[in-house]
Amino acid sequence: MGQENLSFVLEKTGVVKFEDRPVPKLASDYDVLVNVKFTGICGSDVHYWQHGAIGSFIVKAPMVLGHESSGIITAVGDKVSTVKVGDRVAMEPGIPCRRCIRCKDGKYNLCVDMRFAATPPIDGTLAKYYTLPEDFCYKLPESVSLEEGALMEPLAVGVHITRQANIQPGQSVVVFGSGPVGLLCCAVAKAYGANKIVAVDINKERLDFAKSYAATDIVVSQRESAADSAARIIKDCDLGHGADVAIDASGAEPCIQAGIHVLRTGGTYVQAGMGKSDITFPIGAMGAKELNVKGSFRYSSGDYRTSVDLVTSGRVSVKELISNKVKFLDAETAFNDVKAAKGIKVLIEGVEDSA
Amino acid sequence: MGQENLSFVLEKTGVVKFEDRPVPKLASDYDVLVNVKFTGICGSDVHYWQHGAIGSFIVKAPMVLGHESSGIITAVGDKVSTVKVGDRVAMEPGIPCRRCIRCKDGKYNLCVDMRFAATPPIDGTLAKYYTLPEDFCYKLPESVSLEEGALMEPLAVGVHITRQANIQPGQSVVVFGSGPVGLLCCAVAKAYGANKIVAVDINKERLDFAKSYAATDIVVSQRESAADSAARIIKDCDLGHGADVAIDASGAEPCIQAGIHVLRTGGTYVQAGMGKSDITFPIGAMGAKELNVKGSFRYSSGDYRTSVDLVTSGRVSVKELISNKVKFLDAETAFNDVKAAKGIKVLIEGVEDSA
Amino acid sequence: MGQENLSFVLEKTGVVKFEDRPVPKLASDYDVLVNVKFTGICGSDVHYWQHGAIGSFIVKAPMVLGHESSGIITAVGDKVSTVKVGDRVAMEPGIPCRRCIRCKDGKYNLCVDMRFAATPPIDGTLAKYYTLPEDFCYKLPESVSLEEGALMEPLAVGVHITRQANIQPGQSVVVFGSGPVGLLCCAVAKAYGANKIVAVDINKERLDFAKSYAATDIVVSQRESAADSAARIIKDCDLGHGADVAIDASGAEPCIQAGIHVLRTGGTYVQAGMGKSDITFPIGAMGAKELNVKGSFRYSSGDYRTSVDLVTSGRVSVKELISNKVKFLDAETAFNDVKAAKGIKVLIEGVEDSA
Amino acid sequence: MGQENLSFVLEKTGVVKFEDRPVPKLASDYDVLVNVKFTGICGSDVHYWQHGAIGSFIVKAPMVLGHESSGIITAVGDKVSTVKVGDRVAMEPGIPCRRCIRCKDGKYNLCVDMRFAATPPIDGTLAKYYTLPEDFCYKLPESVSLEEGALMEPLAVGVHITRQANIQPGQSVVVFGSGPVGLLCCAVAKAYGANKIVAVDINKERLDFAKSYAATDIVVSQRESAADSAARIIKDCDLGHGADVAIDASGAEPCIQAGIHVLRTGGTYVQAGMGKSDITFPIGAMGAKELNVKGSFRYSSGDYRTSVDLVTSGRVSVKELISNKVKFLDAETAFNDVKAAKGIKVLIEGVEDSA
Repeated sequence: MGQENLSFVLEKTGVVKFEDRPVPKLASDYDVLVNVKFTGICGSDVHYWQHGAIGSFIVKAPMVLGHESSGIITAVGDKVSTVKVGDRVAMEPGIPCRRCIRCKDGKYNLCVDMRFAATPPIDGTLAKYYTLPEDFCYKLPESVSLEEGALMEPLAVGVHITRQANIQPGQSVVVFGSGPVGLLCCAVAKAYGANKIVAVDINKERLDFAKSYAATDIVVSQRESAADSAARIIKDCDLGHGADVAIDASGAEPCIQAGIHVLRTGGTYVQAGMGKSDITFPIGAMGAKELNVKGSFRYSSGDYRTSVDLVTSGRVSVKELISNKVKFLDAETAFNDVKAAKGIKVLIEGVEDSA
Repeated sequence: MGQENLSFVLEKTGVVKFEDRPVPKLASDYDVLVNVKFTGICGSDVHYWQHGAIGSFIVKAPMVLGHESSGIITAVGDKVSTVKVGDRVAMEPGIPCRRCIRCKDGKYNLCVDMRFAATPPIDGTLAKYYTLPEDFCYKLPESVSLEEGALMEPLAVGVHITRQANIQPGQSVVVFGSGPVGLLCCAVAKAYGANKIVAVDINKERLDFAKSYAATDIVVSQRESAADSAARIIKDCDLGHGADVAIDASGAEPCIQAGIHVLRTGGTYVQAGMGKSDITFPIGAMGAKELNVKGSFRYSSGDYRTSVDLVTSGRVSVKELISNKVKFLDAETAFNDVKAAKGIKVLIEGVEDSA
Repeated sequence: MGQENLSFVLEKTGVVKFEDRPVPKLASDYDVLVNVKFTGICGSDVHYWQHGAIGSFIVKAPMVLGHESSGIITAVGDKVSTVKVGDRVAMEPGIPCRRCIRCKDGKYNLCVDMRFAATPPIDGTLAKYYTLPEDFCYKLPESVSLEEGALMEPLAVGVHITRQANIQPGQSVVVFGSGPVGLLCCAVAKAYGANKIVAVDINKERLDFAKSYAATDIVVSQRESAADSAARIIKDCDLGHGADVAIDASGAEPCIQAGIHVLRTGGTYVQAGMGKSDITFPIGAMGAKELNVKGSFRYSSGDYRTSVDLVTSGRVSVKELISNKVKFLDAETAFNDVKAAKGIKVLIEGVEDSA
Repeated sequence: MGQENLSFVLEKTGVVKFEDRPVPKLASDYDVLVNVKFTGICGSDVHYWQHGAIGSFIVKAPMVLGHESSGIITAVGDKVSTVKVGDRVAMEPGIPCRRCIRCKDGKYNLCVDMRFAATPPIDGTLAKYYTLPEDFCYKLPESVSLEEGALMEPLAVGVHITRQANIQPGQSVVVFGSGPVGLLCCAVAKAYGANKIVAVDINKERLDFAKSYAATDIVVSQRESAADSAARIIKDCDLGHGADVAIDASGAEPCIQAGIHVLRTGGTYVQAGMGKSDITFPIGAMGAKELNVKGSFRYSSGDYRTSVDLVTSGRVSVKELISNKVKFLDAETAFNDVKAAKGIKVLIEGVEDSA
């Protein structure tokens, strides 16, 4: 089509369009230019499209969507030393300030000056070209495809959740929600040696996939109290005094409550799903069992690297999660599919490098 | 008075009485017999008296009350080697099974077979004599009084909370609630090097005491949203992007909510107070800030030892908290005072050893 | 044969004999009696036989040898609730005091009053019957044989070493020494997700086994400086700025030195092998690279349980390490084989329960 | 004298001179220009002067000396937001790359591309002006003098060592060596709540100062075996089964050995002093006691900030350590004094800002 840098842009709430933008310049000698090859669609992309905002992040000007991408490096800055033109890479989409206390403490995901792709006002990766620092590019070995490379982003989310959960070999883990992140949490927990991995969802079909993919046990959610639900999970899955770890990847209030009740004394709960800001929460059980309850926000140092390692070594497989691939110009179709919860993970193909 | 083992017994809900019971036998060669000298009254003692139960712990038979005690050793088992008759000791009131996974993992406070004084059906320490294993007796140096010894129990609660909070030198801490435990959390946080210790309460008088005792800043709670309350605390106390640590020692829903909102990204919240089992909780803020939210249940390995160290070295002072001392036969008066929230900590004197 | 409790006893340095001893009584209501079925021989058993002492532990009276055992429970104390007569179990051979600071802190392997099988003056497990507390028995599932059960002891050593090393998924590990413990460290490191596992030994045959068993890379030791050796390992195995973790399971001075030099800045070294008490050590490199250097002593809370989990789930296989099985009455032959470094792990069969 | 940027330069081994150099330009919008006010002299400065190298760092071209400095900001880059012209600041002298794995993991002191003042080939701070990023400047409150500001560097070394040692309230610490770093370790250990702080040195005068400054106990080193030395320290200072923590701030082989022997099982040793590269080391004791042995290299995220907090709050005092102040043009005299071990810490005054 001859475009310099064809981009898929959220014009305003509910309105997307294609736009030809200038090819981005390298802002630093450590930056690289990437021809984006595959981009997965995430619930947050759809949420911006539908609602124009997530929490305090409000889309006030047209913004390129997308942040789960892989691509091929087409230009490198003068000081780049770890990657080169032609390298196939997974692209980590959030660039921290590197200067604040959180960054220097090793938790750059908590940086208050983070610039994150497709989080307003920062443009996303659904474009022909995208620029980022070399140390946020992760070279894919020959055995890992660019399609799999695009899945490193949700996998890194799962790796970070699992790290927050501090899963130890031999532990039992209950994962609420069997969407992409929940499934990947199951897979990472398995790779980290969890003995029992219980997937909980309302959708039996998803659970069957979870079982074939990484879960050792599955439980269909029912209408019942959170305490009853937890008791049922413990009994049916033989969890003794309760699970070592619970992860909520659903954002649903009943799951969060059951997640607290399903744990043994001293267990760890990680909140990964996003839903209502305020919910009814069993604080008494949390205190009496001296639980560790943690948020998990995006990913931080080492999570992307670990993700590539897990796929390279075969300990986690992400191919099964790719349910569909569409052409760049069909991006809106892909968004509609995700909105309709069709499939697990849809990828949008990038625009061929014309150079 | 000639009694063998005069005890203060909860007959049934709302009814207490004195009863002469047999002197307890040493159950093991590692046990000691203690002539109890001082016992502090805790909200939980009053709660059992008034309501006959706390959560799933229900008083089904007459039970001796009291668990915050110090005393003098009057007999020792054959294998006791670390204390001797005549030693003045603080008495840790919960004896774990020593055999379960939690005990062996170093978290005996989470033992499911814990035998805890004045938690049904286990008798408490408000008696002339009490028996416990030598390793749960902590020798008081000459410089520490038996009155102070009785305060080691609430101090150990504060030490455990502070340990859960992992307070580091230079950090900022907001403590909600200025009762005995809240005050002791302020004092321990100070001893551990916290730079800013903000006490929050609805009672200005308590806050004035907190300021004179250990807090660097005080904030009077107002009727306002939790987010507004948190914003006000951050602004008035110059907490930058938010506090490093928040501790709730009030159990009040608005404090718990404000405690979550007052934290910086990656901050730590500890639930120490007990109130409603289920509350409205800002789970979204917890996730987006990737907080660590923790329960704190009683105390575990090292907490009592640390408490005695802190008082011995003068880094924490507990004398100021003793607002009244009453004779053993006036125990019910003391319970009424605590119920009426008179004073900070009331001590009941023990019955003199007749030997 | 009619013996009540036939035992294999170290009479004095260099002299072993069979002796019929009384069947041990249960010392506590929580104890069980086990009919020992298989016992592996360890270097320390041979060392006591040959030298009569290890460090400050001196054999002053006849002592039953052996501590790597599995068996079948034949009697249980009145309060035993987690195992029953007929259960097939792995037997953890060291019983801590449960009362000292180390025990209560969750590190019972550091208990100063530890009673450890076949460490003087405590009798070992090479007997028809052996008694121990129920919580030091680990039930074997049907899929795990009693032979494998005897291997849980060296596996627990490897699990503890790996835990000391805090191996994270994706890390690189260099293991010096390919005896049973070194091999098991490789296997556990693999199970814990290490990406690169380099086995180093002087014996090419052992290395070939290591490669077929769990190592990703092997390096034959040569006569060269420790720094040169480390540089060669880094280069040949593509370890970049150095390995994340080094484990010495050889006890050999040149390996220890190379282990320090092979690490990246901030890496972790674990000393597992036993050799000379004092060696020449590159303390300057340790400081400049800010390494973590750790001892690893036996095993502690959770290590045995994790070992059974790892074998049950198939993440670690121990069958390959069993090179020979001999009858109880041929125990001395087995000791001679271990002394001569024949095979990897020799098992001695137990005496059939006559009841 | 009219110089633009008078600097104290190491010309070549043993030869220093004053040189007028251009005022440095701000290399980034986040950089500031500081008029240096006070600079402490460190053993490493003297070592470069005398020997021209430390380990693999070799002085190949003239290099400005000095790295323990405070000053006043005289210019700021366009994006500087946390400090302003006129601010009095402590200057952290090592600037990491912010991009490598170590930096992103929160351990920038282990950065392989670190640019550290007065470590070849990077110029030091003994100049009229020095430039560095704003986030490596720490504003001094009014109550803290610029002289004290220059002491933040060795204090940060002590803070980092103490953090490596993970000192907990109530613990016992033995510090070998009572030079500036050893003394500051005693002071920080005290601030962190250590109960017993034993200073060990060969020089009684230094020990008397240590006792008056921060140590609770002092021990004069004698000619004896390391094991005997350790046993004597344990006995004389009533350390029970051994110290919780040992810190070597001497670099002397006998101290390192005694430091290992003085610890209890599971204790922590930190190597802070620099001496011989290779020493005789009690590796057997380290293994049998399962010790944690750690290097400590410079300082990392939070250490400078904590240092300023400790001095501001009065928990650590550094004034007592300043034994002398000399004019900038007498810098060589100051170096000769440090070489001759005169006093504890000598400061060199800066050149007045002429603007």
